[in-house]
Amino acid sequence: MAPTTRLVVPIDLKKKPSEQKLPLHNRWHPDIPSVADVTEGEMFRVEMVDCNGGSIGDNDNALDILTTSLFAAHYLSGPIRVLDKEGMPARPGDLLAVEICNLGPLPGSEWGYTATFDRERGGSFLTDHFPSATKAIWYFEGIYAHSPQIPGVRFAGIPHPGLIGTAPSMELLNIWNQRERELLEEGHKSMALSEVLHQRPFACLPTPEACLLGKIEEGTPEWEKIAKEAARTIPGRENGGNCDIKNLSTGSKIYLPVFVDGANLSMGDMHFSQGDGEVSFCGAIEMDGFLELKCDIIRGGMREYLTPMGPTPLHVNPIFEIGPVEPRFSEWLVFEGISVDESGKQHYLDASVAFKRAVLNAIDYISKFGYSREQVYLLLSACPCEGRIAAIVDAPNACATFAVPTAIFDQDICPKPGKIPMGAQLVRKPDVMKCTYAGNLPITKNPSASA
Amino acid sequence: MAPTTRLVVPIDLKKKPSEQKLPLHNRWHPDIPSVADVTEGEMFRVEMVDCNGGSIGDNDNALDILTTSLFAAHYLSGPIRVLDKEGMPARPGDLLAVEICNLGPLPGSEWGYTATFDRERGGSFLTDHFPSATKAIWYFEGIYAHSPQIPGVRFAGIPHPGLIGTAPSMELLNIWNQRERELLEEGHKSMALSEVLHQRPFACLPTPEACLLGKIEEGTPEWEKIAKEAARTIPGRENGGNCDIKNLSTGSKIYLPVFVDGANLSMGDMHFSQGDGEVSFCGAIEMDGFLELKCDIIRGGMREYLTPMGPTPLHVNPIFEIGPVEPRFSEWLVFEGISVDESGKQHYLDASVAFKRAVLNAIDYISKFGYSREQVYLLLSACPCEGRIAAIVDAPNACATFAVPTAIFDQDICPKPGKIPMGAQLVRKPDVMKCTYAGNLPITKNPSASA
Amino acid sequence: MAPTTRLVVPIDLKKKPSEQKLPLHNRWHPDIPSVADVTEGEMFRVEMVDCNGGSIGDNDNALDILTTSLFAAHYLSGPIRVLDKEGMPARPGDLLAVEICNLGPLPGSEWGYTATFDRERGGSFLTDHFPSATKAIWYFEGIYAHSPQIPGVRFAGIPHPGLIGTAPSMELLNIWNQRERELLEEGHKSMALSEVLHQRPFACLPTPEACLLGKIEEGTPEWEKIAKEAARTIPGRENGGNCDIKNLSTGSKIYLPVFVDGANLSMGDMHFSQGDGEVSFCGAIEMDGFLELKCDIIRGGMREYLTPMGPTPLHVNPIFEIGPVEPRFSEWLVFEGISVDESGKQHYLDASVAFKRAVLNAIDYISKFGYSREQVYLLLSACPCEGRIAAIVDAPNACATFAVPTAIFDQDICPKPGKIPMGAQLVRKPDVMKCTYAGNLPITKNPSASA
Amino acid sequence: MAPTTRLVVPIDLKKKPSEQKLPLHNRWHPDIPSVADVTEGEMFRVEMVDCNGGSIGDNDNALDILTTSLFAAHYLSGPIRVLDKEGMPARPGDLLAVEICNLGPLPGSEWGYTATFDRERGGSFLTDHFPSATKAIWYFEGIYAHSPQIPGVRFAGIPHPGLIGTAPSMELLNIWNQRERELLEEGHKSMALSEVLHQRPFACLPTPEACLLGKIEEGTPEWEKIAKEAARTIPGRENGGNCDIKNLSTGSKIYLPVFVDGANLSMGDMHFSQGDGEVSFCGAIEMDGFLELKCDIIRGGMREYLTPMGPTPLHVNPIFEIGPVEPRFSEWLVFEGISVDESGKQHYLDASVAFKRAVLNAIDYISKFGYSREQVYLLLSACPCEGRIAAIVDAPNACATFAVPTAIFDQDICPKPGKIPMGAQLVRKPDVMKCTYAGNLPITKNPSASA
Repeated sequence: MAPTTRLVVPIDLKKKPSEQKLPLHNRWHPDIPSVADVTEGEMFRVEMVDCNGGSIGDNDNALDILTTSLFAAHYLSGPIRVLDKEGMPARPGDLLAVEICNLGPLPGSEWGYTATFDRERGGSFLTDHFPSATKAIWYFEGIYAHSPQIPGVRFAGIPHPGLIGTAPSMELLNIWNQRERELLEEGHKSMALSEVLHQRPFACLPTPEACLLGKIEEGTPEWEKIAKEAARTIPGRENGGNCDIKNLSTGSKIYLPVFVDGANLSMGDMHFSQGDGEVSFCGAIEMDGFLELKCDIIRGGMREYLTPMGPTPLHVNPIFEIGPVEPRFSEWLVFEGISVDESGKQHYLDASVAFKRAVLNAIDYISKFGYSREQVYLLLSACPCEGRIAAIVDAPNACATFAVPTAIFDQDICPKPGKIPMGAQLVRKPDVMKCTYAGNLPITKNPSASA
Repeated sequence: MAPTTRLVVPIDLKKKPSEQKLPLHNRWHPDIPSVADVTEGEMFRVEMVDCNGGSIGDNDNALDILTTSLFAAHYLSGPIRVLDKEGMPARPGDLLAVEICNLGPLPGSEWGYTATFDRERGGSFLTDHFPSATKAIWYFEGIYAHSPQIPGVRFAGIPHPGLIGTAPSMELLNIWNQRERELLEEGHKSMALSEVLHQRPFACLPTPEACLLGKIEEGTPEWEKIAKEAARTIPGRENGGNCDIKNLSTGSKIYLPVFVDGANLSMGDMHFSQGDGEVSFCGAIEMDGFLELKCDIIRGGMREYLTPMGPTPLHVNPIFEIGPVEPRFSEWLVFEGISVDESGKQHYLDASVAFKRAVLNAIDYISKFGYSREQVYLLLSACPCEGRIAAIVDAPNACATFAVPTAIFDQDICPKPGKIPMGAQLVRKPDVMKCTYAGNLPITKNPSASA
Repeated sequence: MAPTTRLVVPIDLKKKPSEQKLPLHNRWHPDIPSVADVTEGEMFRVEMVDCNGGSIGDNDNALDILTTSLFAAHYLSGPIRVLDKEGMPARPGDLLAVEICNLGPLPGSEWGYTATFDRERGGSFLTDHFPSATKAIWYFEGIYAHSPQIPGVRFAGIPHPGLIGTAPSMELLNIWNQRERELLEEGHKSMALSEVLHQRPFACLPTPEACLLGKIEEGTPEWEKIAKEAARTIPGRENGGNCDIKNLSTGSKIYLPVFVDGANLSMGDMHFSQGDGEVSFCGAIEMDGFLELKCDIIRGGMREYLTPMGPTPLHVNPIFEIGPVEPRFSEWLVFEGISVDESGKQHYLDASVAFKRAVLNAIDYISKFGYSREQVYLLLSACPCEGRIAAIVDAPNACATFAVPTAIFDQDICPKPGKIPMGAQLVRKPDVMKCTYAGNLPITKNPSASA
Repeated sequence: MAPTTRLVVPIDLKKKPSEQKLPLHNRWHPDIPSVADVTEGEMFRVEMVDCNGGSIGDNDNALDILTTSLFAAHYLSGPIRVLDKEGMPARPGDLLAVEICNLGPLPGSEWGYTATFDRERGGSFLTDHFPSATKAIWYFEGIYAHSPQIPGVRFAGIPHPGLIGTAPSMELLNIWNQRERELLEEGHKSMALSEVLHQRPFACLPTPEACLLGKIEEGTPEWEKIAKEAARTIPGRENGGNCDIKNLSTGSKIYLPVFVDGANLSMGDMHFSQGDGEVSFCGAIEMDGFLELKCDIIRGGMREYLTPMGPTPLHVNPIFEIGPVEPRFSEWLVFEGISVDESGKQHYLDASVAFKRAVLNAIDYISKFGYSREQVYLLLSACPCEGRIAAIVDAPNACATFAVPTAIFDQDICPKPGKIPMGAQLVRKPDVMKCTYAGNLPITKNPSASA
């Protein structure tokens, strides 16, 4: 008999995240209780809301992006406890092999969005160039996405979970909180450094604000305690988490270290597509989605295969195998950047600066072909661009590349002898939706502030 | 009649760089005279010595790597003046489209090497972990390379020129020298920053030491003047130069900005293969080689297609199209790194740190399969690994990935249930050649020092 | 607002084909009434039962394959009438562009089967070597399929509709029936020819037996008339139909000629995967499935783009564009065959014989690695093998190749120095299910016979 | 020290085939003496003249094609005797693994040609549609080819040897001669069959005419004897030979059965590029070229790995592994054909007829975009088209596909709403060169006739 895929975390899109049958969570903490058990080798299905928990509308207005709170992202399904065939849970020191057998948007919700936050409300990689909140809606036609706000492009996405990870142990959680707090404190001392890139928050520390802890009821003493300790989900860390690796699509395998009994696997932030870097921050095609997974436990595998790099055995990172069914693009236009910033200042082998320059070069170039720079920024953040570190040794210039698949456009965008025709230069309408923070919005805190 | 490919720069491997019929150069300067003219549309062939000008031997000793001087790299063929079909030269503001029709090792010289410099003599990306000079020799069997010092691997390379570029104008050259000098001066003030990565020189400023200026005779007043001004070739810059983009292989097209009359195209640093990042610095498979090229001039194209990003119209970068015949790998093992360094310290969205961690994770993992860490370091620097910036927005962690094609190994290196067999863990012999700076070598200067 | 995908033909798997809400059909005829309308540009979903209409069970017995009737295949959903945005139907002479935006198994029915019919009951390409009915069951894990009867293989399929086509006009239908009848009649005269390949029926002519005509009620005079005329669906013809082109997967575009008002598009015979040739006849992984499609009408396009090749303007064939997301295999073991048959007899540039030899060579080779020849036959018919015509000019030998992706096996199957290990040669159990026609089965007619 | 590649068979293009230092041969026979020895594992280089031995000119006239003699093709380099590391030769029953490490045109001869012979002088697959001799010249720009006679196309080829094989034993040679003679005799009885496809010779039997036997001097008794027995090289057979498998490019591995001591490997018929089928017969881009090879002997491998299919253990075929560096095309326009011929007649599962129809459909379609049908015929024969057998079981129609990579054109050739613009329909000049057999040419025999 055909084995059935068991739905272990259902989502009802008519309900809020906090009202789901199996309650969601948006923090990392070892004490968030698991909501389901799965067994090694079993196929199971997990449904997820989009990273902003349904607060962003399929409409022609970026106000929701402007006012959404980073404190709440990302809404995760799980944790899921993983047992072996004898019913024994995965244990710290094991490696959890998670195969992505299938994934996609939730049936009936075949759309997504790409956005930049206002610079005062989370910003993005290029927030110094693009300070306003912007939003584009994408509609899915099977494997393809297109956007009413970015006319003339259509492409096959590489769908993937932006976020998947195991629960940290208390020891690991403490390491995270300490090192991120230190950064925030040091950051204020060396503001010059941060200005190189932009004016975004240095770190996202624990805060009870908008905190959701699954089965643990808000307001209880347990909730109060955990909410103060639990790590935010914005950055990827040793447990995987929000890695935003765009190629973790169907058929991929993820080897995650296990830090707590049962592994306590959580996931969310489903992307229909994303460019390397996810440069506009809310920068993939964010969607509601499902994952169909199969887990294996490699007993002792974390110790056997991973090498800690840091003061404790916990300083490890996941490894991955890529699946066989990504869209195939054969022609790429590649933009280069070096670690000299837009003011002409030289930086030392700084791949972030080099990558920033490569992305800016791509935006400026493509905007010559009938797009506003805001349209191109969202497009290149969302479509399957490849961002590479070409050279990291040729002092003082790191060299990064950003490759754009040319087949996504309905026109030829490669350089040609002769001038770019005037027609190509007319900005296509409608443009992306834009909205700027005006100061009088009902926002009480900067999203980066910690409790 | 079949058009013939004209050999415009021949190399005689029995002669030194300074003795070649068309003399080589190893600096960027507008006044280095061109050695040949080519016409738009014509196929022409350029031969080149390896980046170290033949000073590295096909032997079992890394002493030559230890003692080679970074002042001399890279030996370039050219400059070549590009004319249109009417005989008019390319002009500043044009875009030069260079198609790579064919390339490879020089016939009779089917071998190359990969090396790390000693930390006192140039170092590498991981010089804090690998402080000694090391060297591996590669032999070519058509498209494949294998190394006696790294047994059990064989792979098809993606041959490419590590370095190709146009001559800078005097104005651009001055910009380079000024911004790099500022970095060197500021660097000393903020040593903490540089220690994050390693202890390598901040910049490589002009110096007459080992300077080669083509047809301009050493010791003449003209030589003295230019040698003091001419930019070193180590970093890639606005003119292209040492980008080390590993995918610029056969069939690629390079769009270079033109800054001087005739464009004055130079090239060298041929690589049989390289991993993204070229992490071991002398880190590709360095070889003597040839390029067969075809140029087109896009009149005004630099102004039409490129957008300056900086104080002057000169702050632009080349763009590229990738060719159709790269080796095809379908299975990759992917290592992740985040911007937390090996001491456990948190950095802010630093892609260089994240990439460093990903590469270190890969080295540690693969060295479990019968290799010394030095062997793996050279291997991953030389084979066609992909280094990506997965996410650059999830404060505070940049997330980078480093993907290794698994088919290059003669064993299965993916994680499996059960322990890694003891056999896999025995280091294969011979190992890479290693040599450490002892202080008593006949070296008078640090290669990074400026005049 | 996100456009919704409209379900135009639903299937209830608990009901028989004849009981579906929108009745199915298994013949081609212009007078089979359409069951739904779709508009150009609209995304719509069509559900389909498997080619045998649910008569084959997910069980350990090939008796159902032995007794199933070829008269009934294939059960098609539709016909669907296609209108332009003004509501005007596609017309004869137009070209219908059908984009496959998405497809897959029906939710809850994630399994399929591959089979050979008994030589007396339909046979297969190699029926002279494999005369019995055999069956293997496949279970789907997302993109992957594996079979309890063929242990040690697992692969990503290239799902596709085996059959999609437009309704023929009466004139075209008459051409079909006449030419196929002529073949059947001539065939008896030149039996020697057919014996070259095997002893299968020459053609499948119209017959009322097991005939299903959608909304036209069985037994009515209209039904009687049409049933005698309507073409069987076994072969692909000018209208597309049962082409079994394995690469018509997600993202493909099919340009179908239009012969009747509304085009009357029908589809079925969904395959999870198939090798080129579909050699075992019931030889794909047959499944229940869905298609999500989008149609465009190219007015006059049949006349503009297609060139008739035959006595009337109707002798045309569809054309296709392949989609971008097929599984990626980089290593293939390729078997060759030439047009010398198994008895040693030379045939003249006969690609069918050469292909037969290539497939037989592949079966014999792979069966050395622990499989029965029946297992390999079903496997190579079902997995994404590539069958090519390498040379069709080198008299007297056509040369065909059959390429097997080696990554589907859990062992290395390439030739190596030394003997194949004994372990590899032990046939893996369980084997495929086999069942032979005994003569006493309740079968009244040979499935190839015509009325 | 870098191992050197040993040149074992040099070619001097200024000399005729019969004047080469190591004399060429154009027949298969066990008694043709070997001209060189190679050792297992050693890299060696073999140079070859084009299939017609230099008789076809780089000029604007197809007269040389009209008058060239099929008796002389193909001019082969070798035979080469293969020894193991102990100096023992490969023996009958072994398998010879030949790796193609590198290949290409001969330096200084970067051009080739594609042609159809006159129907009276060898014809081609579509000789009934294209009865005249035609010729197109191709010039190589590195990996790319373009033709003055077929403007507007340029593509990267997949270079390969059209012909590579081991010497037959006398027993195998007798089998060949007998079965081909039988075909020729039977052919005359069943002319109807051959007329289906065209009016070409059925087989190419041994003949002393234009026979070249390497070191065996013409006119000697030994020569007379062998010339009468030696097999022509036109068809591929059990020993490999003229398989024309277009994907046997760099990095491929060929496993050839060994029939005589030393294996006696011969090779020739180098192709810069070819479409599956090589439909125009002289249908690849024929060139002078070189191969760099490495051999391994798998002792007893022929018996271990290959399964004879026929009356003797000699009825085996080679197997292959495909290399990793073929050009990458992501977009294909696919034409279909079924086994109904151009007169409307139905054939039974005849893949040759189906393939013919697919190719004819492709020619007719593409000729709408500004090409003569002759131009397209030569183009599709020479560029890397894929010819597949989609379905061989759906009686009575075999279904074949012919896929054309669209990126080779300088225009978009996919179907679009609206008429094909008039501009696209103007035949581009110059056209291919054409020449018709007039009866008064100095030709004494039909090239297909046997002694």
